[in-house]
Amino acid sequence: MNMEYLEKILKNVSAGRLSVKDAAKTLKHIHFEDINYAHVDHHRSMRKGFPEVIFGEGKTSEQIIGIIERMAVQEEIILVTRVDKMKAESVLLRFSDAVYHEDAKMIVWKKKEIFPLQGRGKILVLSAGTSDIPVAKEAYITALAMGNEVDSVFDVGVAGIHRLFDHRKMIDNASVLVVVAGMEGALPSVVAGMVSRPVIAFPTSIGYGVSLGGLTALFAMLNSCSSNVAVVNIDNGFGAGYMASIINRC
Amino acid sequence: MNMEYLEKILKNVSAGRLSVKDAAKTLKHIHFEDINYAHVDHHRSMRKGFPEVIFGEGKTSEQIIGIIERMAVQEEIILVTRVDKMKAESVLLRFSDAVYHEDAKMIVWKKKEIFPLQGRGKILVLSAGTSDIPVAKEAYITALAMGNEVDSVFDVGVAGIHRLFDHRKMIDNASVLVVVAGMEGALPSVVAGMVSRPVIAFPTSIGYGVSLGGLTALFAMLNSCSSNVAVVNIDNGFGAGYMASIINRC
Amino acid sequence: MNMEYLEKILKNVSAGRLSVKDAAKTLKHIHFEDINYAHVDHHRSMRKGFPEVIFGEGKTSEQIIGIIERMAVQEEIILVTRVDKMKAESVLLRFSDAVYHEDAKMIVWKKKEIFPLQGRGKILVLSAGTSDIPVAKEAYITALAMGNEVDSVFDVGVAGIHRLFDHRKMIDNASVLVVVAGMEGALPSVVAGMVSRPVIAFPTSIGYGVSLGGLTALFAMLNSCSSNVAVVNIDNGFGAGYMASIINRC
Amino acid sequence: MNMEYLEKILKNVSAGRLSVKDAAKTLKHIHFEDINYAHVDHHRSMRKGFPEVIFGEGKTSEQIIGIIERMAVQEEIILVTRVDKMKAESVLLRFSDAVYHEDAKMIVWKKKEIFPLQGRGKILVLSAGTSDIPVAKEAYITALAMGNEVDSVFDVGVAGIHRLFDHRKMIDNASVLVVVAGMEGALPSVVAGMVSRPVIAFPTSIGYGVSLGGLTALFAMLNSCSSNVAVVNIDNGFGAGYMASIINRC
Amino acid sequence: MNMEYLEKILKNVSAGRLSVKDAAKTLKHIHFEDINYAHVDHHRSMRKGFPEVIFGEGKTSEQIIGIIERMAVQEEIILVTRVDKMKAESVLLRFSDAVYHEDAKMIVWKKKEIFPLQGRGKILVLSAGTSDIPVAKEAYITALAMGNEVDSVFDVGVAGIHRLFDHRKMIDNASVLVVVAGMEGALPSVVAGMVSRPVIAFPTSIGYGVSLGGLTALFAMLNSCSSNVAVVNIDNGFGAGYMASIINRC
Amino acid sequence: MNMEYLEKILKNVSAGRLSVKDAAKTLKHIHFEDINYAHVDHHRSMRKGFPEVIFGEGKTSEQIIGIIERMAVQEEIILVTRVDKMKAESVLLRFSDAVYHEDAKMIVWKKKEIFPLQGRGKILVLSAGTSDIPVAKEAYITALAMGNEVDSVFDVGVAGIHRLFDHRKMIDNASVLVVVAGMEGALPSVVAGMVSRPVIAFPTSIGYGVSLGGLTALFAMLNSCSSNVAVVNIDNGFGAGYMASIINRC
Amino acid sequence: MNMEYLEKILKNVSAGRLSVKDAAKTLKHIHFEDINYAHVDHHRSMRKGFPEVIFGEGKTSEQIIGIIERMAVQEEIILVTRVDKMKAESVLLRFSDAVYHEDAKMIVWKKKEIFPLQGRGKILVLSAGTSDIPVAKEAYITALAMGNEVDSVFDVGVAGIHRLFDHRKMIDNASVLVVVAGMEGALPSVVAGMVSRPVIAFPTSIGYGVSLGGLTALFAMLNSCSSNVAVVNIDNGFGAGYMASIINRC
Amino acid sequence: MNMEYLEKILKNVSAGRLSVKDAAKTLKHIHFEDINYAHVDHHRSMRKGFPEVIFGEGKTSEQIIGIIERMAVQEEIILVTRVDKMKAESVLLRFSDAVYHEDAKMIVWKKKEIFPLQGRGKILVLSAGTSDIPVAKEAYITALAMGNEVDSVFDVGVAGIHRLFDHRKMIDNASVLVVVAGMEGALPSVVAGMVSRPVIAFPTSIGYGVSLGGLTALFAMLNSCSSNVAVVNIDNGFGAGYMASIINRC
Repeated sequence: MNMEYLEKILKNVSAGRLSVKDAAKTLKHIHFEDINYAHVDHHRSMRKGFPEVIFGEGKTSEQIIGIIERMAVQEEIILVTRVDKMKAESVLLRFSDAVYHEDAKMIVWKKKEIFPLQGRGKILVLSAGTSDIPVAKEAYITALAMGNEVDSVFDVGVAGIHRLFDHRKMIDNASVLVVVAGMEGALPSVVAGMVSRPVIAFPTSIGYGVSLGGLTALFAMLNSCSSNVAVVNIDNGFGAGYMASIINRC
Repeated sequence: MNMEYLEKILKNVSAGRLSVKDAAKTLKHIHFEDINYAHVDHHRSMRKGFPEVIFGEGKTSEQIIGIIERMAVQEEIILVTRVDKMKAESVLLRFSDAVYHEDAKMIVWKKKEIFPLQGRGKILVLSAGTSDIPVAKEAYITALAMGNEVDSVFDVGVAGIHRLFDHRKMIDNASVLVVVAGMEGALPSVVAGMVSRPVIAFPTSIGYGVSLGGLTALFAMLNSCSSNVAVVNIDNGFGAGYMASIINRC
Repeated sequence: MNMEYLEKILKNVSAGRLSVKDAAKTLKHIHFEDINYAHVDHHRSMRKGFPEVIFGEGKTSEQIIGIIERMAVQEEIILVTRVDKMKAESVLLRFSDAVYHEDAKMIVWKKKEIFPLQGRGKILVLSAGTSDIPVAKEAYITALAMGNEVDSVFDVGVAGIHRLFDHRKMIDNASVLVVVAGMEGALPSVVAGMVSRPVIAFPTSIGYGVSLGGLTALFAMLNSCSSNVAVVNIDNGFGAGYMASIINRC
Repeated sequence: MNMEYLEKILKNVSAGRLSVKDAAKTLKHIHFEDINYAHVDHHRSMRKGFPEVIFGEGKTSEQIIGIIERMAVQEEIILVTRVDKMKAESVLLRFSDAVYHEDAKMIVWKKKEIFPLQGRGKILVLSAGTSDIPVAKEAYITALAMGNEVDSVFDVGVAGIHRLFDHRKMIDNASVLVVVAGMEGALPSVVAGMVSRPVIAFPTSIGYGVSLGGLTALFAMLNSCSSNVAVVNIDNGFGAGYMASIINRC
Repeated sequence: MNMEYLEKILKNVSAGRLSVKDAAKTLKHIHFEDINYAHVDHHRSMRKGFPEVIFGEGKTSEQIIGIIERMAVQEEIILVTRVDKMKAESVLLRFSDAVYHEDAKMIVWKKKEIFPLQGRGKILVLSAGTSDIPVAKEAYITALAMGNEVDSVFDVGVAGIHRLFDHRKMIDNASVLVVVAGMEGALPSVVAGMVSRPVIAFPTSIGYGVSLGGLTALFAMLNSCSSNVAVVNIDNGFGAGYMASIINRC
Repeated sequence: MNMEYLEKILKNVSAGRLSVKDAAKTLKHIHFEDINYAHVDHHRSMRKGFPEVIFGEGKTSEQIIGIIERMAVQEEIILVTRVDKMKAESVLLRFSDAVYHEDAKMIVWKKKEIFPLQGRGKILVLSAGTSDIPVAKEAYITALAMGNEVDSVFDVGVAGIHRLFDHRKMIDNASVLVVVAGMEGALPSVVAGMVSRPVIAFPTSIGYGVSLGGLTALFAMLNSCSSNVAVVNIDNGFGAGYMASIINRC
Repeated sequence: MNMEYLEKILKNVSAGRLSVKDAAKTLKHIHFEDINYAHVDHHRSMRKGFPEVIFGEGKTSEQIIGIIERMAVQEEIILVTRVDKMKAESVLLRFSDAVYHEDAKMIVWKKKEIFPLQGRGKILVLSAGTSDIPVAKEAYITALAMGNEVDSVFDVGVAGIHRLFDHRKMIDNASVLVVVAGMEGALPSVVAGMVSRPVIAFPTSIGYGVSLGGLTALFAMLNSCSSNVAVVNIDNGFGAGYMASIINRC
Repeated sequence: MNMEYLEKILKNVSAGRLSVKDAAKTLKHIHFEDINYAHVDHHRSMRKGFPEVIFGEGKTSEQIIGIIERMAVQEEIILVTRVDKMKAESVLLRFSDAVYHEDAKMIVWKKKEIFPLQGRGKILVLSAGTSDIPVAKEAYITALAMGNEVDSVFDVGVAGIHRLFDHRKMIDNASVLVVVAGMEGALPSVVAGMVSRPVIAFPTSIGYGVSLGGLTALFAMLNSCSSNVAVVNIDNGFGAGYMASIINRC
């Protein structure tokens, strides 16, 4: 239908029935057709200049391969998140040049060796505990794949706050910080109090008892005394890395 | 009834019908009668050697005066918690030697000038924010009245973690620490990571949005990565001060 | 800076101008102090180049005046949030050159007329409903006072999604977007799907029944299908404006 | 029908063909029995003119077959919901003319080829994401089996709101709309703002973190700014399709 | 801007540059401008043929009068919800022909005496208890004002289920049913089990203890064993009446 | 009774005294009617032999007087719950022989001096704390007014468990026990462990912090290790007294 | 130890050192020893005259056999709850005269054929749905084993309220009613409105979405408009049957 | 120690043995390093004089062995918590002198036979039910391994409160009490009412229905009427034992 309409307007223009200016104005509002075409994974919408992402959880390796095949024609880079090792191996049999990051449970496939650096400063990924590393790695790989310089420091929880100060320089130099914590979720508040840059806090579901599957960490982060903190959903490593990247890109 | 029974047993002993050992054994289990008599405020039970406490909230000044009068006969010290200024003034008209601590909303009345020092070390009360001071003061006054040396540092929240280190010595020297925090409730975890002594964490209802009336702080404290932390109810300043005192007394 | 100071002291020691004992004493505290002095209001920590903020709720006008007086010596701009009209009038009697924004419940005081523009792009504040305007205005005034160009569009809720498209140009041009919504909290997701720039979503407590004081909006925002969204606490207009500003400043 | 039967019995009594005692016995049970008799699955009560439904979850294939056998005598159409593939295959071995819809996890068995069209307008089933399709299909198959014309559009979530406008015509023409969404649950609000017809919103348990098993989507839908929305239980695809059908049937 | 565009298209048509068909098609999609204008209260969106509604809560009588004045020019009927008696009296001083329904807390203003009957069948409003009457009346007045025949039966709670059967005829004859209940929220399930027509269940915040401000009733209604039930937000009388009306109108 | 009536109608049909059509009409509604007449207050349904109750909260003294007047014609005893002192005084001006129990906030009006004793054993009302007394008294007065012998012991909370043993005899002799507790809600479990008789546990909203308005006490009681415990709603003193009475009456 | 003490007292009595009266008084308070001995399963405390119960969940068949062996010496009847079929078969290999009720997941072992009838009236177990039958059966078997006459009617949910009236006589005749429901939990309220006898309501975890594992049914039951209802924990069939039995026994 | 080291470096500078630049470099990191060195497991921070602990859950036996090997060089005692039997057996193959406590799921490895007694009094571990024993044992083994004298009494729940009094002497003699309970969580309140010493209450996730995975027990404990109670996280046996130990050590 949109196509018909498009042709009609263009015919009016070519026949002198519609000025170029008016046609342009009209066309501006049917622009979604061509954008729509690019939305293969509809839950992780990406705009031009950024790689597509495939949410691997609940998809078979066949489905993942199928989506990659369709995307590979036009994309420079493809990310797949939440892929366990067995699925990843099947996918890599088909795309031997893809790389599987087991700790982050992500597959990264790039068309060209070198990806242009898009971010302006460095992104730093900090995590409170060893068990937070998998989701922290998801944020790390995402930010890296999106063309940023990324540093990471794991296991600097608040129970030994002095460890944080060992990394003071790295913290001070970061352009955007992604701070991961489960349990009491205190790390983002402490880190945000040390810097003037934006901190993306993301809670993990690590813990037991009243950690409530990450709700306690989430609420603690939203209650942060520092104002340079904004929060993403529990275990949403991809989202944290993505948000940090677009902040860094501006 | 218990009294009659007591007399009976004693008569048996005096008549040689019951050995001293057996009498002692028996008497041990009717000891609640005489203790019961002393339990005027039944919600804040105190044992020998510790002052009674009157929970002032929801009581009229007349009721508070009545209870103090009954208690003053046998007690060395009397505490009243959660008393607003107006009520306190009425009470002080009757007991001119009592002292009202407006910030802690407590009345302290002592029979003698000097109260014997019962605690072995120093108790330190730390609070995260200025708005936590009232409940922090309730813990402070309670611990003081119970015969402890008490120090306090207010407003050392985690958003400016360096401030904590200014008070490192005081923190290191404390025998028991009471750490108060609302909002993200992170301070007790950070402090407990710095010391080897027991930390009594108590959450306050200070905050808005997802502070959830103190639940977020409470859950964060229960999730503390440090193991030398135990927690009391939201806004329970008296309980925190009391628990710290009995730990310090051992 | 600390490094320079440290080397200076060491040089003094090396040159015999400072005893080992005095140097040790000085070094012990050095690296906190110079950072410390800027933290007048400990709950809204600001770094150099950004104005201080005073959280007005629960403070008397006398207390607010006192804090402003202390800050005015060294600060170029002072913000006071959550001040009702009556308190504000008392404060303005003392600081006649301050401005009170009644809808945002904020006082802004500036030393000089012109405040240097620090942000790189435009910040856009969007709100879903008329009742969200007060908190939306808090974000707006904050971002403005922090040296940003700020636009705002109020009342573009998802129940009449077409209204959003009327402002498409403004939305496309924004460098950072602050999107406010109560009730179902859907607006940030919709807006984030339209742009490639970072969206700071902030939920309000507006609503009844299962709006649950803003929790529903908060959770909806955290669940956003778009990845360029991060969230701040319920009704935290200042925090949203602040976070947007530091993102824009980078 | 009951009335006819009742009058028939009374006529028999009046004509002396049935004794008073036997009539009384019969009448005592009549008006439940024929209704009751039809309630084989007591949790999905259906009235005259509408197909029976068997809730397949937690039932063995033997139990399902048994119930179908009892029902098939008098029913024109039989629905079985929440049947996994393995169970369905066993059932279809017995009823070879039944159809299994794997995506909706439903079995539909019809006595006659053509089912009379009962609905007046078209029902449109819209879903926000690909993962919502299974429950959306349950609503779709239910509405279809109940004699409605049904259209469906899947994957038109609010993160790419323009996609919705591609289907504007279908949306405008629908008599009743069933709108499915998980995560932030925003789609029903947006769609309801575009139409004047009733929208049945149903939340799915799809999501992680603060999606809280569908509670966030549910609450968001109940908070909808549009008033032409009513909501059914989480993942209740059958209920949504059923409710839409009886609205369409009026 | 839209207006200019409208003129431009019309000029093209009048000049023969654009066919009537094409112009109509184009105009269909810029229709929001003129509707937008009519959306004075943006939280209760109404489409053509239905009265506007003003949400009175949190608005001054001056604000309500101002909105009515703007709306009265073009509307046939105006509803104001949640207006207390004092405010209503001020409003009626200005609009003496408006009617205030004190129990429903609603103002209804009509331009003409007779409002065309739009609904096809009868709407029945049932409530469980006497304390539910105010919100039940909001639904009743709304449905009435929207041109429906409406019946109501109050106080037929499930604790005396036989009372319900006294009204069996009325229940059987209703085209759409609005069933209100607080506390255990059982009434909608029971009623829906008796009829084949759609039931709009709406929970009230009436109750204490574990009524949880209406959440228990809401959840009970969503869990209804009957499938012809859909639910609106707690205390949302207007929404229930509105939804029933548009179902009845089809 | 219905059976007799049914046969009578059928005999009339058989004898030609009643037409088939009229008989059918009558039979359709018959079995509800005779039950109906006894329900005056629909929220506190009482059966013959038990007093009516008027829920006073939210009713004006005029409304309460009006209801009493209607009831007094046929009832021997009338209870009004949750009446504050001011309202009660107005009611007593009209009914000078009624008695107001200020602590229980109840009015009791009796037609005759002596009310027949209906319960078989003694009911014992136990409460944990002094602040639970008002609701405990509601249960006490209710049980008393319903014709039971009732004892009560207040302030025997688990923090001084020995006090409970002082009342061992009274506890052992009770036929039914009503045990009230707020805060940790432990008393019913402890008491139920001491007796073989049924314990009605009822939680109060007394407490702060995580007492969660009585939810903690409620859940604790439902989790009781003793099996002779059943629970009523938070603060539902009337319900507890009522349930105890009907158990005692059997 | 207690035994020694007992001997000592008795020796005092026999030697004339202690009067019979005093000895009796003393012995009254050491009576727990002999009762304690009988408490093999400490979570289901039973008093004299009632059978012991073994909570089977989480115990191996060996452990269950061991406990039965110890109990069988002195008990007339033994109940084991929550035993799956496999475990039950192992237990029955050892105790061939025990009976396994597969639907209730209970083992009942009786020493003698005839168990004395202890209850005074009939207990009626009613359940709302077919899926509630297993827990309803637990209540049924428990009440039966405890010496009551028990009737049961399953599957009389409120979605077809007429079915309830078929069983009116049985309902009217019951001395105590146990009413089971999941989902919206409405049945106990409806039934309690029909009778004057005590109703033990017990919620089941059956349902999905907002049934919240039985919490919705539980809260609905606690909110019952009828006052002759008290509630036990979710899925607590044993507790419901036990409580009904002791009420019936009085 | 740090002071000594600092002065040493400064002396080296003063004596020209160390350049200013090198000294600055060294001083920058000094005060963390020596503390940091001891933190091998970052989630269970231990200070000098106390054994390290390894959280076994989610770690492979290989990982556990690896950590023990690194720690064994310098530690006297090593604890591993939450290790199932299979993992434990693998670990013990490598460290044949370690001991596995199956009920507590802990491995204890000691370098020397005799561990110096550090605690001053006795720690008593009390648990309410048999199912609480595993977590209670975790507390017991932890306290024992940390050099305390520890007693334990299991299965003294409040449903048979008399059992508690059998152990009165042990309870009275304890220096610190760890009281474990699931379900209604009442035991710590009762015990704390009997003693003047600190009680560490810890809730377990044992229970069903409204035990809510331990939240009910947790909240009940936080609401304790006794003030000598502080609480740790649900199922946190190690934390309870640890906290009790450091209280006992003072």
